[in-house]
Amino acid sequence: MNLDVAASTPLDRLSAALTADLDAVNAMIRARMASEHAPRIPQVTAHLIEAGGKRLRPMLTLAAARLCGNRGPYHVHLAATVEFIHTATLLHDDVVDESHQRRGRPTANLLWDNQSSVLVGDYLFARSFQLMVETGSIRVLDILANAAATIAEGEVLQLTAAGNLATTEETYLKIVRGKTAALFSAATEVGGVIAGAPEPVVRALYDYGDALGVAFQMVDDLLDFGGTAAVIGKNTGDDFRERKLTLPIIKAIAAADAEERAFWERTIGKGRQEEGDLAQAMALLTRHGALEQVRQEALRWAAHARAQLDLVPAHEIRPMLADLADYVVARLN
Amino acid sequence: MNLDVAASTPLDRLSAALTADLDAVNAMIRARMASEHAPRIPQVTAHLIEAGGKRLRPMLTLAAARLCGNRGPYHVHLAATVEFIHTATLLHDDVVDESHQRRGRPTANLLWDNQSSVLVGDYLFARSFQLMVETGSIRVLDILANAAATIAEGEVLQLTAAGNLATTEETYLKIVRGKTAALFSAATEVGGVIAGAPEPVVRALYDYGDALGVAFQMVDDLLDFGGTAAVIGKNTGDDFRERKLTLPIIKAIAAADAEERAFWERTIGKGRQEEGDLAQAMALLTRHGALEQVRQEALRWAAHARAQLDLVPAHEIRPMLADLADYVVARLN
Repeated sequence: MNLDVAASTPLDRLSAALTADLDAVNAMIRARMASEHAPRIPQVTAHLIEAGGKRLRPMLTLAAARLCGNRGPYHVHLAATVEFIHTATLLHDDVVDESHQRRGRPTANLLWDNQSSVLVGDYLFARSFQLMVETGSIRVLDILANAAATIAEGEVLQLTAAGNLATTEETYLKIVRGKTAALFSAATEVGGVIAGAPEPVVRALYDYGDALGVAFQMVDDLLDFGGTAAVIGKNTGDDFRERKLTLPIIKAIAAADAEERAFWERTIGKGRQEEGDLAQAMALLTRHGALEQVRQEALRWAAHARAQLDLVPAHEIRPMLADLADYVVARLN
Repeated sequence: MNLDVAASTPLDRLSAALTADLDAVNAMIRARMASEHAPRIPQVTAHLIEAGGKRLRPMLTLAAARLCGNRGPYHVHLAATVEFIHTATLLHDDVVDESHQRRGRPTANLLWDNQSSVLVGDYLFARSFQLMVETGSIRVLDILANAAATIAEGEVLQLTAAGNLATTEETYLKIVRGKTAALFSAATEVGGVIAGAPEPVVRALYDYGDALGVAFQMVDDLLDFGGTAAVIGKNTGDDFRERKLTLPIIKAIAAADAEERAFWERTIGKGRQEEGDLAQAMALLTRHGALEQVRQEALRWAAHARAQLDLVPAHEIRPMLADLADYVVARLN
């Protein structure tokens, strides 16, 4: 029992309310990441799964199921499913981005090799699939299969849009809905479905997850530029180096004069980056108020997420989900 | 209608008997590899899917379903599912093996990049999953989810066994059952299940696919050394370079004297390979009769596959499947 609830974050409160379920999810994750034949699999998986992730996505499934009066055992399977899909995409993302650090630790592709990350990711994806089949719900399988396709499509779109200055805000939103929001919305939706919630509630849970995911990713994209304060830190600049057209950059390019446009053409379009370019990029983002504009958009998405909760049952979990929507944007402060 | 059936291979005859179904599968593959948002996806997929693959795995599903008197439409979905899973694993394999050629053409990772191969593979895997969900059969989903996990596990096991001279024939068989036979046996099994075949028939179809897959992979491993004639050609030596402990090598190591063992330690164990080593490896394989021993094992697996067919219904397709078992080994001649 967490006695210091007043000082805690919405995520802590949600986690405290879901403690028993989360323990069951963690036990299932540990049991299912085992491999009789290939010890490399649990090694790579444990490195990532036990690195202190927040378990945000499985918590969304557990919270949605609880909110809707779930009685069966399958919310645990689905929460583990969602975490496995998330972990599989992280492994593959780190290969695609050639990342060397995640959550402050060396990535699996650095500790082992790209091969292990690709294949263990495939294994976790297959394992997630086995877990959801155990629920016996075709509807749940349909939702998660569609989410998996949308995630991969978003990742490919991001890859092909990198370095393309003509990328629109519409394309950015498609990428974000794919790479991030699709799993958030599937996580909340399957929680409602497995609990047998009525259609309008399931729809509201989907919309909540979708809006929360978009807000979450916009904030991540801001944090990559040091948040709205635009300060270079150890976790900043990855997107710039990878020439990703995130929303702050898209807005700055739209407002650029000829000289600024030449800067973006060189650094993002051609990828010819020099010392000091990240600081210059941040200065341009600040000059055009791009960071603050994106923060405002994230706040609107968070408010949209919160509004969906009017349509779900009153329950002690509901205000925690509402606060969570504000909290994902408050990470900026 | 193929008028020259007498001169054709068992694969040609099977293909002729299944023409209409195969056309439907190809149409479904083309429709489902599309992506509204990311044109890179159909580009990469088409490169591989239209490269003249034999469609062996989807044909196994179609043949098994036909044999069992299938009446519904879902054999087409399942055949397309199996081909998508196969294509996804090829994309990921080529990244893992750093391959530059497949089916005589440059690989996708060479034409585009590793990133595209990883992410498009993920997309096809998700698409395969959507296709099988459409069948509405939890049993089919269970079989294919298990197959997907077994495939990935076999691939990881192969990766971690590379360069390990202590690899046993038992481990080799686990790898082969994973990377190859699991999809063959799932392909035939789901064909029977979707047709509503009785359990003993489903089991026989599974066993047929499993044994066919093992024979097929043993022959592939022999062909990598030029077949039993052990001749260096443009498609030989990949496994040796990648330090894979395939069955011919395992048998040659078991029979090696001290000097030969030092050769395997250097070339496979340490990966220090020089000009002429592949020819020397082939000479050792021939000296110990390793290639012929493996051919005999492949023949036994093929005979085992053929024997399973006694348990399935008499049908014009049945002798074609029986001949197919012999044919996968006859590729050596």
